[in-house]
Amino acid sequence: MSGNRAVAYQGPGVVKVIDTDYPDFELHDGPGVHPANVGRKIPHGVILRTVATNICGSDQHMVRGRTTAPEGLVLGHEITGEVVEAGPDVEFIKVGDIVSVPFNISCGRCRNCKEGKTGICLNVNPDRPGSAYGYVDMGGWVGGQAEYVLVPYADWNLLKFPDRDQALEKILDLTMLSDIFPTGFHGAVTAGVGVGSTVYIAGAGPVGLAAAVGAQLLGAAVVIVGDLNEDRLAQARSFGCETIDVGKGPVPDQLDQLLGVPEVDAAVDAVGFEARSEGHGAKAKEAPATVLNSLMEATAAGGAIGIPGLYVTGDPGAVDEAAKVGSLSINLGTGWAKSLSFTTGQCPVMKYNRQLMMAILHDRAHIAAAVNAKAISLDEAPQGYAEFDAGAATKYVLNPNGYIKE
Amino acid sequence: MSGNRAVAYQGPGVVKVIDTDYPDFELHDGPGVHPANVGRKIPHGVILRTVATNICGSDQHMVRGRTTAPEGLVLGHEITGEVVEAGPDVEFIKVGDIVSVPFNISCGRCRNCKEGKTGICLNVNPDRPGSAYGYVDMGGWVGGQAEYVLVPYADWNLLKFPDRDQALEKILDLTMLSDIFPTGFHGAVTAGVGVGSTVYIAGAGPVGLAAAVGAQLLGAAVVIVGDLNEDRLAQARSFGCETIDVGKGPVPDQLDQLLGVPEVDAAVDAVGFEARSEGHGAKAKEAPATVLNSLMEATAAGGAIGIPGLYVTGDPGAVDEAAKVGSLSINLGTGWAKSLSFTTGQCPVMKYNRQLMMAILHDRAHIAAAVNAKAISLDEAPQGYAEFDAGAATKYVLNPNGYIKE
Amino acid sequence: MSGNRAVAYQGPGVVKVIDTDYPDFELHDGPGVHPANVGRKIPHGVILRTVATNICGSDQHMVRGRTTAPEGLVLGHEITGEVVEAGPDVEFIKVGDIVSVPFNISCGRCRNCKEGKTGICLNVNPDRPGSAYGYVDMGGWVGGQAEYVLVPYADWNLLKFPDRDQALEKILDLTMLSDIFPTGFHGAVTAGVGVGSTVYIAGAGPVGLAAAVGAQLLGAAVVIVGDLNEDRLAQARSFGCETIDVGKGPVPDQLDQLLGVPEVDAAVDAVGFEARSEGHGAKAKEAPATVLNSLMEATAAGGAIGIPGLYVTGDPGAVDEAAKVGSLSINLGTGWAKSLSFTTGQCPVMKYNRQLMMAILHDRAHIAAAVNAKAISLDEAPQGYAEFDAGAATKYVLNPNGYIKE
Amino acid sequence: MSGNRAVAYQGPGVVKVIDTDYPDFELHDGPGVHPANVGRKIPHGVILRTVATNICGSDQHMVRGRTTAPEGLVLGHEITGEVVEAGPDVEFIKVGDIVSVPFNISCGRCRNCKEGKTGICLNVNPDRPGSAYGYVDMGGWVGGQAEYVLVPYADWNLLKFPDRDQALEKILDLTMLSDIFPTGFHGAVTAGVGVGSTVYIAGAGPVGLAAAVGAQLLGAAVVIVGDLNEDRLAQARSFGCETIDVGKGPVPDQLDQLLGVPEVDAAVDAVGFEARSEGHGAKAKEAPATVLNSLMEATAAGGAIGIPGLYVTGDPGAVDEAAKVGSLSINLGTGWAKSLSFTTGQCPVMKYNRQLMMAILHDRAHIAAAVNAKAISLDEAPQGYAEFDAGAATKYVLNPNGYIKE
Repeated sequence: MSGNRAVAYQGPGVVKVIDTDYPDFELHDGPGVHPANVGRKIPHGVILRTVATNICGSDQHMVRGRTTAPEGLVLGHEITGEVVEAGPDVEFIKVGDIVSVPFNISCGRCRNCKEGKTGICLNVNPDRPGSAYGYVDMGGWVGGQAEYVLVPYADWNLLKFPDRDQALEKILDLTMLSDIFPTGFHGAVTAGVGVGSTVYIAGAGPVGLAAAVGAQLLGAAVVIVGDLNEDRLAQARSFGCETIDVGKGPVPDQLDQLLGVPEVDAAVDAVGFEARSEGHGAKAKEAPATVLNSLMEATAAGGAIGIPGLYVTGDPGAVDEAAKVGSLSINLGTGWAKSLSFTTGQCPVMKYNRQLMMAILHDRAHIAAAVNAKAISLDEAPQGYAEFDAGAATKYVLNPNGYIKE
Repeated sequence: MSGNRAVAYQGPGVVKVIDTDYPDFELHDGPGVHPANVGRKIPHGVILRTVATNICGSDQHMVRGRTTAPEGLVLGHEITGEVVEAGPDVEFIKVGDIVSVPFNISCGRCRNCKEGKTGICLNVNPDRPGSAYGYVDMGGWVGGQAEYVLVPYADWNLLKFPDRDQALEKILDLTMLSDIFPTGFHGAVTAGVGVGSTVYIAGAGPVGLAAAVGAQLLGAAVVIVGDLNEDRLAQARSFGCETIDVGKGPVPDQLDQLLGVPEVDAAVDAVGFEARSEGHGAKAKEAPATVLNSLMEATAAGGAIGIPGLYVTGDPGAVDEAAKVGSLSINLGTGWAKSLSFTTGQCPVMKYNRQLMMAILHDRAHIAAAVNAKAISLDEAPQGYAEFDAGAATKYVLNPNGYIKE
Repeated sequence: MSGNRAVAYQGPGVVKVIDTDYPDFELHDGPGVHPANVGRKIPHGVILRTVATNICGSDQHMVRGRTTAPEGLVLGHEITGEVVEAGPDVEFIKVGDIVSVPFNISCGRCRNCKEGKTGICLNVNPDRPGSAYGYVDMGGWVGGQAEYVLVPYADWNLLKFPDRDQALEKILDLTMLSDIFPTGFHGAVTAGVGVGSTVYIAGAGPVGLAAAVGAQLLGAAVVIVGDLNEDRLAQARSFGCETIDVGKGPVPDQLDQLLGVPEVDAAVDAVGFEARSEGHGAKAKEAPATVLNSLMEATAAGGAIGIPGLYVTGDPGAVDEAAKVGSLSINLGTGWAKSLSFTTGQCPVMKYNRQLMMAILHDRAHIAAAVNAKAISLDEAPQGYAEFDAGAATKYVLNPNGYIKE
Repeated sequence: MSGNRAVAYQGPGVVKVIDTDYPDFELHDGPGVHPANVGRKIPHGVILRTVATNICGSDQHMVRGRTTAPEGLVLGHEITGEVVEAGPDVEFIKVGDIVSVPFNISCGRCRNCKEGKTGICLNVNPDRPGSAYGYVDMGGWVGGQAEYVLVPYADWNLLKFPDRDQALEKILDLTMLSDIFPTGFHGAVTAGVGVGSTVYIAGAGPVGLAAAVGAQLLGAAVVIVGDLNEDRLAQARSFGCETIDVGKGPVPDQLDQLLGVPEVDAAVDAVGFEARSEGHGAKAKEAPATVLNSLMEATAAGGAIGIPGLYVTGDPGAVDEAAKVGSLSINLGTGWAKSLSFTTGQCPVMKYNRQLMMAILHDRAHIAAAVNAKAISLDEAPQGYAEFDAGAATKYVLNPNGYIKE
């Protein structure tokens, strides 16, 4: 109980497994911890022994050096664990419970939490509404790519799995409940996907694939996924999606070939600000507004666009001055002429994780297979980061304590 | 019955009252009529003797020469009238009915109409979904700033007032049902305004003022209207709004003084692409993205922005090359960080006009007073256009047939 | 073209195939036609050559003599057809189109239709809002279990299938769009079924089975169907439902065995007023409130109950005086203590049929297999009625013109 | 700090002010406390010095002896107070805060609370979902018609008023946020009231009047209140409602005179199971289903009925055997034919109280005047109960600690 090991950011392109402190019920000073959070008491928290913790595409933004993340920051906001200690204020969560941790940290006591808007909790991040574990500018909550992690407001935040054995058996599916499955699903929901919809999802990374599974669960008639990466497109086809190689011509033309019309009812931007223009290899240069502008073309009048893909307020490494301050050149007139609506922002995970857990437990959703989940050891994390960054069609799941048997 | 007089666009800055044809049940060739619509039979239409027809801010876009509107185009899409002839397919609307005409022309027979999306009807405009009377690129339906006008699909489109005398008595209120009252209300609805909301509305022109009345009807706790025009702000104060002169400092600072916090729950963009930067007189130059970017600052995390203000796909007179093709520099990162949502497009008038009529008839809404409605003769139309363009805090209502008594 | 053959009600327990008139564009006098509808002109109508027309459980209410249906009434409100003639006011539907007819007749021009409430159209039934083909007290629109049938307001009412060959290939699925698929789906929607829900459906007749398919499409985690008829329960199991024989013990106990809790999130009453108490054979006497009271027990606090099952205002053949006037003994206190909500009434088919068509055409829903659709000739209709009444786990589809090949 | 005084039920028709214990952070044994709740630790609670606490119509059910409430039960679930002590787990609520207490007790940690369904919290009442202070069969939480009261899960439950002086100035309005204002508003919301609606509210007691204010806030065009008590109807007229004396003829006839049609868009049952038939004095005998059946007549097809009025699962004093077990004779066929929907149950106060507070603080709602709020001392409580039971058109507000100045 006296030690802990964790994955830390050590500068652009570098992640390492480091020795670090075993958590207690207080938020201590350290890399990235907001001064106003130093010393914060967490009697409402629990300490988890990590069962599974995934590498996320948004971790890559930090690792690529596209943010102001400090060296030494412990990464990881996709966490499933076993409760090993509970603070004195925890009433319903018990030691031994296997639980999913929503990546959004929320208090369950502010106006936004009471309204279900847990992605913008007012009490956990001194800088702005909303927070996450192991992330730059999110208040300094220590990341969960580690053997042990502290989770605050445990009765509120945690989703308990009903049966331990069943949970461990389906752990590669259930681990996706902490972020990408709800995040992709939120993209589909906010795009207005319903029974019979035609859907286009830009991006076949894990969030895009999760959005595709989400759209299928919502009853979509056709789900079409676009990307430049053929391996990821093959992954999408493996569970019944149609696919588009966006390097091979305009999206509307390719939609027309699939659907007989050049537009869909609903669209999801699962790419975000690091989008690349349509074109392969050297021709595919960064073009931060290209996905969103393309989706406005591809969405039928009256449709909606869900935007789970991250757009940032500042991006020092951007291709132009405007993008460096988060300003993008958007064809708003096109959207307006078509009466489109747009929903941005972090997914409020708690809004969806229980229902998606039910879909997993009753074999209605096979998200692990859809995203090609692969368990690796904590020590293999740096390699997992590298492979994922290189475009592997794989979702890497860290297995720091050996719970995941294969 | 053999003649008609109407207000026509005659080139940048010029409108005139012209003699024109009395309508029949066919769409004839003429300025702005789409070739595919020439000769279209309208057995489902009625001919109205115009009771009231208003000058709209969106007419000004054409008159200022900011569009490709052809000379001779008869203007006017805000129409209330008395039915004087009904085509053979009209079953429920009768000669003598006093009716409000939604500015969106819709067929009531396509998928979008069946879904209530009458702003993007698929069957009335050969160019794209959605249409309107007397407007460039909208299919060529003849405008209603005239003595007589043809309305297609009359059983579907028309809202009949229950009592003729009551209707004529409240005509200055009821005439706002054809466009600005539903349009402003739609802005408030799509901004998520509800009971107890704090609301900021950018723009104190007629649509902004209508949005303010709409927000009040929806139960908003505080409605704050911002503009550079003091006369229009005075108009907003006349019915209980707070106001902000946006030339006198950042909007968040001024909100903070009014509310104790620098943000509102809900915001409405009632300005659109002809926005001007904050600053008076010569300093206030056109800045098409300024309103939307400012609203993202002023809206609290989790809020929504309704955008009834028009954004165009092409604007040859724009200040820069990007804006000329409808591309604006939007601080999307700010919106994303705050989980904002955005709704654009024409208001589907039929979704709201009946309920707003009820609010008027039962004295719950006084929209004519709010927008300072003023009846003028058809011949005074050119002067009305000029005064409105100069910033008069007045909504001009044409009275071509003398129905409006004062 | 001068004749027509149709299935008619000829007294309690008797249906016959009769010779009758080929329709024209007028509603003529005849059995069950409301005097105010006699002579009504239908220039907005089309004449269909019937492709498929199904026997419905609600037809059985009439055939069993439980209504005031007059002898000679031509039955049939589940109609799919090919357009063979179009009235002069029909603009978008064309001769040769293969179309689905919503069983609700609606005008597309009244307040309710404009609000999407096509089940309670104000202009088609002189007695009350709402109408249907071939049904007692519904205005007298002639039924469609016939070779030819007239459909009014064709541009509004009809759902055109995009491709003739594809439509005929999937006709046994598509024929369910006229009533039971949307009706069952509406039950699931109004019960609040969503992704991850646990659902209990009372009744494994065609509507109950359609509700089960609908619940699956909506993403339900578990769908449980209850009935006394083992053949129908076997049908439910054939597409992945759990089942309960309601004669074998209280529903909550059986739910507990399946789910670990004695309640579901959402419940559908697909039985209606002819419900029988739990108990087999002679013990199963009619008990009109038993299903609804049982569903209040079986639904978790905060849940909702969708009630597509028919309840009537008068039932001369009912078991007690109260039920004869449509008054049932409901345990409202139980519902109130659990904060339940209830939605009753006809399904507004047009709200759902397009999206469910998309689900069929893209192989997301296999409704024909789920309800065990079986095509029979028009002449076999009387036998189909008898078998269905005897509890056959079959949905009978009449094939009057030989379109359905097997 | 060593004592407390409170209003207690002392048998049918009898309430007394008694000396009782000052609360601490534990739920002790006493009249009506569920054994499973005895000894429950409440470190998440606060102790309030009561600022205002109202007598509620639902208290009268107990006082009239219509329930199994034990003698000695301390009454009161409508509570506003000043925080005088906070338990160790309370983080955001502070001593000195003036707060409104939702009458529903909820934990903020169970599935239902996370979904906003605080009226059916799973963790506060061992018997069933949902709880309240000072109420029979609700777990045994001590009532707040007292000088001091314990409130559990304070960070979650309490609504803090932003400014102490402002709160005390508007205290007679703000005290209605604990129950009747949200409860009436919930009735209006679940009846589907929106801008332009016509609304009928059965019952002009405080909840009915609050529903009327709520309907006005939601933008209703006309609000009509029905009752047998002329004083209460006069109260309704005082803020702009129309009224109906239900003893003077069928409701539809009276609606017709007011509206020109015999039906409304939306209806609220603010009476519940102690309804009396239409008829004055001796003729007005108890008829528990009469209000609900009457509302089904009075609501237009497609409408909704909100049912905040209490219906119970058992009522030993009921007029007939069926009603004694909570079974009422409902004309369900009428409702079904009109496609009505129904929402029952306790109002989840937290869903609405913040927004209604905003409406009060910004002078958009004057609920105290609407319900004729009258402050009386704690010692006057028995008289207040008696007068309210006798039909006084007054809402009695107890002022145990002299905060309310007049």
